[in-house]
Amino acid sequence: MDKIRVGIVGYGNIGKGAEKAIAHNPDFELVAKFTRRDPDKVAGDKMVSLKNIADYADKIDILLMCGGSAKDLPEQVPELAKLFNTVDTFDTHAKIPAYFAHVDEVAKSSGKLAMISTGWDPGLFSLQRVLMESAVPTGAHYTFWGKGVSQGHSDAIRKVPGVLDARQYTVPVDATVEEVREGLNKTYTARQMHTRHCYVVAAPGADQALIEQQIKQMPNYFEPYDTFVTFVDQETLEREHGAMPHGGIVIRSGITGAGSHELMEFKLTLDSNPEFTSSVMVAFARAAYRLWKNGVRGCVTPFDVPAAYLSAKSPEELRKSYL
Amino acid sequence: MDKIRVGIVGYGNIGKGAEKAIAHNPDFELVAKFTRRDPDKVAGDKMVSLKNIADYADKIDILLMCGGSAKDLPEQVPELAKLFNTVDTFDTHAKIPAYFAHVDEVAKSSGKLAMISTGWDPGLFSLQRVLMESAVPTGAHYTFWGKGVSQGHSDAIRKVPGVLDARQYTVPVDATVEEVREGLNKTYTARQMHTRHCYVVAAPGADQALIEQQIKQMPNYFEPYDTFVTFVDQETLEREHGAMPHGGIVIRSGITGAGSHELMEFKLTLDSNPEFTSSVMVAFARAAYRLWKNGVRGCVTPFDVPAAYLSAKSPEELRKSYL
Repeated sequence: MDKIRVGIVGYGNIGKGAEKAIAHNPDFELVAKFTRRDPDKVAGDKMVSLKNIADYADKIDILLMCGGSAKDLPEQVPELAKLFNTVDTFDTHAKIPAYFAHVDEVAKSSGKLAMISTGWDPGLFSLQRVLMESAVPTGAHYTFWGKGVSQGHSDAIRKVPGVLDARQYTVPVDATVEEVREGLNKTYTARQMHTRHCYVVAAPGADQALIEQQIKQMPNYFEPYDTFVTFVDQETLEREHGAMPHGGIVIRSGITGAGSHELMEFKLTLDSNPEFTSSVMVAFARAAYRLWKNGVRGCVTPFDVPAAYLSAKSPEELRKSYL
Repeated sequence: MDKIRVGIVGYGNIGKGAEKAIAHNPDFELVAKFTRRDPDKVAGDKMVSLKNIADYADKIDILLMCGGSAKDLPEQVPELAKLFNTVDTFDTHAKIPAYFAHVDEVAKSSGKLAMISTGWDPGLFSLQRVLMESAVPTGAHYTFWGKGVSQGHSDAIRKVPGVLDARQYTVPVDATVEEVREGLNKTYTARQMHTRHCYVVAAPGADQALIEQQIKQMPNYFEPYDTFVTFVDQETLEREHGAMPHGGIVIRSGITGAGSHELMEFKLTLDSNPEFTSSVMVAFARAAYRLWKNGVRGCVTPFDVPAAYLSAKSPEELRKSYL
């Protein structure tokens, strides 16, 4: 079988996770890891300068775009979709329609396919929201995140004066999860759905009460939530809060017939958020390349992918053993 | 918008559930309900004799095939796929490959599409098994059913001499579910995964000890399980065990990277198994008709359906609000 030849663009947590995921998917072959830095100064094999990526247009079937959603992907994907099929984990929900339109235009005119917003949210969670609503159209869905580390919230804390380092966990409110399961289909505020737990390393002599107040009052990030701040030393932060667990639950509660309550839940409990995210991305890379080989062009999302396209197994095997 | 015009074939629990599901899906229009009986003697509107179904070839976009998997569907679907697109809930797992091959041949030559094995297992659970394995290929998946009524097991009990009526619940073994969540990825026997709880109405004067023994020793159905038998009177059976709840959990436990444990669970808790099953079937009818309009012919399964095809919402709306 011809392997799917991939390149990794961006070698942070997601890029490293993608490399590990390829090792679990023997139908893939890693051709190169592209970096903006001097490749001779980055540890690891197959490092190539991003400047030379055009040389690989015929050697790579799809690029795994592993940069961040804020700056990297909006710059790189429209540029690289001129030469390559791409798959990414673009996760700025509010900007997806504009990003889709831009990438779609580029990929349609280059004859390539760009699969955007894979991973778990967006990605698997998005699929569940659509599957569940389609299965039971009368009802409501709820997404809870955590317990897990939010990089964005951790970064926001680090910008507070007097803070040296921080780690923020998003935690679902158990009582609300239970209430959703009961089928009341209420509307909840942000505060009713999640709490925020902050582990903060303060600079020596810093005013901890002031830091706590500034965190708790931060608009959007913390003010709409019940926020708990714990001060720890750097060693404790690294030892006890150095991992990147995450997870969450999508719940749909609805009715069929005259009022039969039907409850659906999809739950993730992840040791490694970046490894899982990039492992999902690799499955969508397989699907993306297959769609492209079948003549699909332009921008697509996880909603456009039949499940069989994600699997390394044959349609016959899937029907026999998984259906 | 043109509505999707459907006919219901078979008016038992699934057919009645399908009719209720159509009421929750305003993009559908119910044209006729086909019955093998004299339509004048069946309560309800739009009843038509199955003998006259060919007259509806141009009036119906897809047939919801609501008969049983043992006899009805293997007879009716290959016959009706000569004239109609069809969707069904064929659930005899071991016979799916042969059924697929037969239906595929008919539908390809008639230029129709037949979507088989929708519902929740096969159906939504099958999709989860494939999605989850694709996301984390190194690992194992487990399917638990229940707590819920198994018609097949209830029927088997009713055939025991001296039994007037019976209801059987399949129940997952909680300790095994918990062990699976811990990520040990062991292999379990049938007995370790489920217990069977039987509520039995015995004939007056029947030997209850003998009935219990005969149930517990029944090969395949009860012998491989820890089985619990409770004798009740008919009134109690109808009052306390008259509903058709069901549900279950698909769990995948696997690793990414060098050993990060990633746990995925999809759980259903259903008040009405037949209503939910047929509600899922209606979503797949929407997808099936769209695939057919896009030129797909022959037999397909839930693995061949992009999530967007299942939804009544537009791709733009899905990207904006669900991705």
